[in-house]
Amino acid sequence: MSKLLIVGTVAFDAIETPFGKTDKILGGAATYIGLSASHFNVDSAVVSVVGDDFPQKYLDLLTSNNVNIDGIEIVKGGKTFFWSGKYHNDLNTRDTLDTQLNVLADFKPVVPEAYKDSEFVMLGNLHPLVQLSVLEQVEDPKLVVLDTMNFWMDNALEDLMKVIAKVDVITINDEEARQLSGEHSLVKAARKIEKMGPKFVVIKKGEHGALLFHKGQIFFAPALPLEEVFDPTGAGDTFAGGFIGYLARTGDISFENMKSAIIYGSNLASFCVEKFGTERMEVLSEQEMNERLYEFKTLTQFETQLD
Amino acid sequence: MSKLLIVGTVAFDAIETPFGKTDKILGGAATYIGLSASHFNVDSAVVSVVGDDFPQKYLDLLTSNNVNIDGIEIVKGGKTFFWSGKYHNDLNTRDTLDTQLNVLADFKPVVPEAYKDSEFVMLGNLHPLVQLSVLEQVEDPKLVVLDTMNFWMDNALEDLMKVIAKVDVITINDEEARQLSGEHSLVKAARKIEKMGPKFVVIKKGEHGALLFHKGQIFFAPALPLEEVFDPTGAGDTFAGGFIGYLARTGDISFENMKSAIIYGSNLASFCVEKFGTERMEVLSEQEMNERLYEFKTLTQFETQLD
Repeated sequence: MSKLLIVGTVAFDAIETPFGKTDKILGGAATYIGLSASHFNVDSAVVSVVGDDFPQKYLDLLTSNNVNIDGIEIVKGGKTFFWSGKYHNDLNTRDTLDTQLNVLADFKPVVPEAYKDSEFVMLGNLHPLVQLSVLEQVEDPKLVVLDTMNFWMDNALEDLMKVIAKVDVITINDEEARQLSGEHSLVKAARKIEKMGPKFVVIKKGEHGALLFHKGQIFFAPALPLEEVFDPTGAGDTFAGGFIGYLARTGDISFENMKSAIIYGSNLASFCVEKFGTERMEVLSEQEMNERLYEFKTLTQFETQLD
Repeated sequence: MSKLLIVGTVAFDAIETPFGKTDKILGGAATYIGLSASHFNVDSAVVSVVGDDFPQKYLDLLTSNNVNIDGIEIVKGGKTFFWSGKYHNDLNTRDTLDTQLNVLADFKPVVPEAYKDSEFVMLGNLHPLVQLSVLEQVEDPKLVVLDTMNFWMDNALEDLMKVIAKVDVITINDEEARQLSGEHSLVKAARKIEKMGPKFVVIKKGEHGALLFHKGQIFFAPALPLEEVFDPTGAGDTFAGGFIGYLARTGDISFENMKSAIIYGSNLASFCVEKFGTERMEVLSEQEMNERLYEFKTLTQFETQLD
């Protein structure tokens, strides 16, 4: 069984969408990544930090989904990272209402001994120096995937470029790809980003799907057209968790297999957005995932009569 | 050989994009539809109107692409419909700078006798009453496809609903589908539009591809990720021409075959945007079309190892 090491936030979120609002609920990139990857029967562990205000039941949720939490530091007297946001009517854009870094401000990640030989490493969205510190503690991983966002491009570009240079795959959204590369065309943007280090570039387009680029080859995974998107929070992290989870499960990091990994990521993300926060992911069954995989196939597969 | 009847504008366009600008060049929905459908070896004819300022060479271009022009009325002393527009930097939006209806203002379409038994009818974007008039002149067509736009929803909704009720397929863009249905979710929008008459609903999302809906089934065709979009003018009409051209060529109007038709439409549209106006479509070869079809396949086809 492959080991998958995940670094990212474990947090409180308060979310408002056109369909309702939540109090402080379970959130954080590593939470979504871990829950998503748990569907692939890998030995995964989260490196993160919380305060002692963080409910045991949330930690138990991770453990019960076979996510090891030895690397989650609990700071005595500390408060857990908190994010609050409000989505606009189209659910494609949102305003951040509040960000309280709390214990995250001084976070020094420590990778548990048992996971220093992880073959797969998922660097979830966090300060690039924290991502770099985790990477330096892992011995010779087979595949490192980096997720990041425009905030670090604006505020820590030099550090971000250091970590980008060291990873195999980067996942960012379309606007971030344009910002990072200075190119409007995503084909050109991906080519420039490949030159920064990553051999594979995944560009997430939300409801418009995701693109995988590698040495001039392109694969496109659609998002499943849904009747209703309820809450997009965590969709990108769930996508990343499904992507690396599938790769860790199959142990195959070829371009061909990454196509399927992108589909699995999109598949899991399509469930995530159906309810608030982690609610849907907490009860998602393998059967539901497999049935939806069939929907993804029928959505794009075709045979022509002329060729 | 199936007969394909096309109604729509044959016009002058003046286009400005971030890459340059044109003087008055050949344009019009029926022009793009005809050139696109000409790749499928069907017996097609255009019903439209121009002034006697319209160059013979443009009419010859249609004829030399096996598009019958007996239904194009030439108004003596009249001026041809003229549209001028400027695209914004992202090429997704544009401003109309000038619209001169000219001979289009009093257009009474007359379907040539030889095409009144057309099996396939493409109602290109025009006033819904003109579309309706063409439809009334055709005897028992096998498939009628309607293209329209938000302008008619704003200004002639009642007439538009009459023609929508009589067609088999409607092609509109995502924002228009939302406007017509009052639903933000495209899945819900398509279901509502199906209830207005069309058995098949095609929703065009520009660079984000196109969706085909039919009785709860969904197919998605990606747009080909391009290095550069040069001029989007005519892409939607070229898509429609490829869609109905493929259906007319194969004679098969099943949902399964419409999937391929959508792919062919996307394929042809991907060429259209590579140069100004009709420039690329005038020289497009079958070999280029077939090679790009292969790109469309590799873009979305996948095999998973877990199912």
